[in-house]
Amino acid sequence: MTIARRPVPASLQSKIMSAEDAAALVTNGATVGMSGFTGSGYPKAVPLALAARIEAEHEKGNPFRIKIWSGASTGPELDGALAKADGIDFRLPYNSDPIARERINKGEMRYFDMHLSQVAPMAWQGFLGELDTAVIEISGITPEGDLIPSSSIGNNKTWLERADKIILELNSWQSEYLNGMHDIYYGTALPPNRVAIPLTRPDDRIGQAHFKVDPSKIVAIVETDTPDRNAPFAKPDQVALDIAGHLLEFLSHELKMGRMPKELLPLQSGVGNVTNAVLAGLLDSPFENMTAFTEVIQDGMLDMLDAGKLRMASATAFSLSPEAAERFNAEAHRYRDKLILRPQEISNHPELVRRLGCVAMNGLIEADIYGNVNSTHVMGSRIQNGIGGSGDFARNAFVSIFMTPSTAKGGAISAIVPMASHVDHINQDVQVIVTEQGLADLRGLDPKQKAEKIINTCAHPMYRDMLRDYYERAKKSSFGGHAPHDLREALSWHQRFVDTGSMK
Amino acid sequence: MTIARRPVPASLQSKIMSAEDAAALVTNGATVGMSGFTGSGYPKAVPLALAARIEAEHEKGNPFRIKIWSGASTGPELDGALAKADGIDFRLPYNSDPIARERINKGEMRYFDMHLSQVAPMAWQGFLGELDTAVIEISGITPEGDLIPSSSIGNNKTWLERADKIILELNSWQSEYLNGMHDIYYGTALPPNRVAIPLTRPDDRIGQAHFKVDPSKIVAIVETDTPDRNAPFAKPDQVALDIAGHLLEFLSHELKMGRMPKELLPLQSGVGNVTNAVLAGLLDSPFENMTAFTEVIQDGMLDMLDAGKLRMASATAFSLSPEAAERFNAEAHRYRDKLILRPQEISNHPELVRRLGCVAMNGLIEADIYGNVNSTHVMGSRIQNGIGGSGDFARNAFVSIFMTPSTAKGGAISAIVPMASHVDHINQDVQVIVTEQGLADLRGLDPKQKAEKIINTCAHPMYRDMLRDYYERAKKSSFGGHAPHDLREALSWHQRFVDTGSMK
Ligand SMILES: CC(C)(COP(=O)(O)OP(=O)(O)OC[C@H]1O[C@@H](n2cnc3c(N)ncnc32)[C@H](O)[C@@H]1OP(=O)(O)O)[C@@H](O)C(=O)NCCC(=O)NCCS
Ligand SMILES: CC(C)(COP(=O)(O)OP(=O)(O)OC[C@H]1O[C@@H](n2cnc3c(N)ncnc32)[C@H](O)[C@@H]1OP(=O)(O)O)[C@@H](O)C(=O)NCCC(=O)NCCS
Repeated sequence: MTIARRPVPASLQSKIMSAEDAAALVTNGATVGMSGFTGSGYPKAVPLALAARIEAEHEKGNPFRIKIWSGASTGPELDGALAKADGIDFRLPYNSDPIARERINKGEMRYFDMHLSQVAPMAWQGFLGELDTAVIEISGITPEGDLIPSSSIGNNKTWLERADKIILELNSWQSEYLNGMHDIYYGTALPPNRVAIPLTRPDDRIGQAHFKVDPSKIVAIVETDTPDRNAPFAKPDQVALDIAGHLLEFLSHELKMGRMPKELLPLQSGVGNVTNAVLAGLLDSPFENMTAFTEVIQDGMLDMLDAGKLRMASATAFSLSPEAAERFNAEAHRYRDKLILRPQEISNHPELVRRLGCVAMNGLIEADIYGNVNSTHVMGSRIQNGIGGSGDFARNAFVSIFMTPSTAKGGAISAIVPMASHVDHINQDVQVIVTEQGLADLRGLDPKQKAEKIINTCAHPMYRDMLRDYYERAKKSSFGGHAPHDLREALSWHQRFVDTGSMK
Repeated sequence: MTIARRPVPASLQSKIMSAEDAAALVTNGATVGMSGFTGSGYPKAVPLALAARIEAEHEKGNPFRIKIWSGASTGPELDGALAKADGIDFRLPYNSDPIARERINKGEMRYFDMHLSQVAPMAWQGFLGELDTAVIEISGITPEGDLIPSSSIGNNKTWLERADKIILELNSWQSEYLNGMHDIYYGTALPPNRVAIPLTRPDDRIGQAHFKVDPSKIVAIVETDTPDRNAPFAKPDQVALDIAGHLLEFLSHELKMGRMPKELLPLQSGVGNVTNAVLAGLLDSPFENMTAFTEVIQDGMLDMLDAGKLRMASATAFSLSPEAAERFNAEAHRYRDKLILRPQEISNHPELVRRLGCVAMNGLIEADIYGNVNSTHVMGSRIQNGIGGSGDFARNAFVSIFMTPSTAKGGAISAIVPMASHVDHINQDVQVIVTEQGLADLRGLDPKQKAEKIINTCAHPMYRDMLRDYYERAKKSSFGGHAPHDLREALSWHQRFVDTGSMK
């Protein structure tokens, strides 16, 4: 493979080696801090080589499994390959890889599902143990030996600081214009030495463009030229367009009531097709000069930047479809001044989310009639992805919005259920629920008012009578009358789905 | 009644009137912002007079109900009397009054159960509607017309700013040494104008000692001389002492491991007998120069101050037993420099709780085997008190600890259940669970490891086999294997209690 090489300072050139040689430096049982946040900026060569090595060891009957800490989800070359090799003993803080998901749900892989803002501080607290090795993708090395970050930051600063050994993947596929886009804040500390994070606008720069690194810890540099791998987007379907429509109407109403400025407040949006439809809808909205303070920069945000609707966006990673990634790489110089990537402890910091007053828009698996939200556990037990940053944003947002189609699996599942089979977002953190059926503004309502509004507004018509029936009977038989439940039936819809393949 | 009067500036003397006359200024349907946080600093005369008036109107067949916003719970003269008169249409953000609780659970009173840090900001956001009248207890008025706060701050600053009309209760029972103890921060704003809260140590003073008030809004001043009313404490029983013992062992271990400084980190502690036992235990601990950054100042903290173990405490209210309140009033001058009372949006601010790294210690109703905590809804539906500030602290603490006896109702209820019947604190926000049986340190564990630890360490021996039986069978029949559940049985313990009076 001939690759367009990036310069490596003379003092580090002796560390350049193959992915196989670098993977050989990782030992069985090691805890490895990987770069990567969604399909961006994760190492692409060393994990693959490590997976091959693990498979070879397993064939020889030797045990070989590692513990992986990352930013969030990564790509198939990392979580997919290592999970396939049964090489992952423990994983934090977020996963969306289907092979790893299967292993977790079979009990073959331990998974610690965390608030993304808490990963770095908890790693410093020490109870998670030591970090042996960091494997970090970068887009360059400065002549002074500082590291130019790649298309995601995640927890890389912390992994570089905490790891004993550092393996770098220097990826020349990444745009050279990333240089200068990052803002690495070096002011965090453990209590009692924490200070205020000095950021009051999404566009404030509070750190430096490059990672510091102790060169004596660098044990390998692997050169790559491999694209990031994010899922392509589907064209928004009618359901997504309807959800976006309801949401835009709500935001416009808030503007009219004087509860939202005409630049809106900084947007946070989860990933997925629905969110992308919302961003597309904002292109034609009355709002101007918007900003984003969010986890990931999505396709829709590039369009909004192009249209001059979005003034700037702050995130910890890109999460662009392959087409949008090509477009970004071809024109990175145009976007550079409008985008800031930060460590995830900053992009998701509760202090900042509350101060800035984010408009949080996230997906859900199911919501119950009282507005409690399950974002993670299908049928109460099967992990889908993880809580990710949704809790960092939902609890601290100016307004916390959850969006979902009203049904899943072709109508066999109602996204509105009597009782959530698992709770990630308590009703206090859920102010608005939107489905294609309508938008329920739950602010200031008591549980019974919420139930009526959610059933009548958000539920699919084919499930409304069933929900009303449950609710009316629960009111009669419930132990307490604040949030009435019939405990014999509260989870029966889920059980029916498990038994028959349908909640109906 | 002759009372030791507090000076009232000449310009305001015409506003002095009886509680009955003041109560007559409150209209049917009004939204009233009351002072009060636990049994401290709540108005004691006007609500009683208003309750009498409401009863009289009801007897005449006239409708009369109001909406009440407060700091947290209050005393029987307020929530109790007004609930008894069926005078409360709507209540936020927290209630622990038994008469009001009955009404809420009968569906006769709407209750909006909120994170305490969010009350003031949400009142400013506007969706809760207008505030017609504020009824605020104070301990004095300065010659310039500023208000000297009483034994709680709560949301008083916000009520004084937002209300159209202000009724003051000037209570001469409150110590004159309260003057100077308060720290009212006037730097809050709605986004996009929010700035960092400039507090980095629990003892920082960032505001002023008195409330500003627009004198033209003051419609009445009612003079009182009535004690605060908090519940007396029981002497800690063996269960409380055992819980405290386990917790102190944990904290000492964290000190030994270098994960906690010898002054500990600022303590937050919920109210109740168990907490008081923990505070008593800290008197004989190796920790020195401790601080508290918490909601309420409890009996145990006065002892710790006396013993020189506690350097200072910051809170939003006192919550002292009648004896301790007398002791405080007699010696307030000694305590004054060591105590700071702040608005609850500051005492509970997520930004500050995370920055300071509080050690959060709260009570629970039940926890499930995966570490999800129910703090509010008995049998999933009957509200006990409310979430209060527990979510502000638990999510942002350095370590979030929940404490409970392993059983309730004489053993008929297990505090450890297969599935929480309501969730207030998701497992990510619950790092340690302590019962008299033992302490489960859940940090870094996956759900199945948590289940084993919680069952083996925290559950009462008489429920352990039942829990193991559930868990083992759930592992076999569960839809997904990340956090196994058998949905047919997950809530059956609660249903059995409802049906038979026992979970056994
Ligand atoms: C909740 C979440 C899974 C929804 O994802 P999405 O892409 O918007 O929604 P989809 O409708 O495509 O659902 C994803 C999968 O969950 C399934 N699903 C959705 N709702 C379901 C339900 N109620 N019951 C069962 N399965 C359900 C879908 O069928 C789909 O499964 P498939 O891939 O096997 O077809 C996703 O938002 C998430 O992981 N959230 C938690 C983390 C987060 O919020 N991160 C961003 C915030 S910073
Ligand atoms: C959870 C909470 C109710 C526990 O209170 P506590 O005083 O420590 O504990 P107690 O054991 O005295 O329990 C209080 C009541 O709940 C009942 N209770 C406790 N656990 C129960 C259970 N699992 N099932 C049914 N009832 C239960 C008790 O029997 C008691 O009822 P009673 O007064 O009718 O006898 C209390 O901590 C609370 O309201 N927490 C939420 C708010 C909060 O945490 N505030 C402080 C943080 S800033």
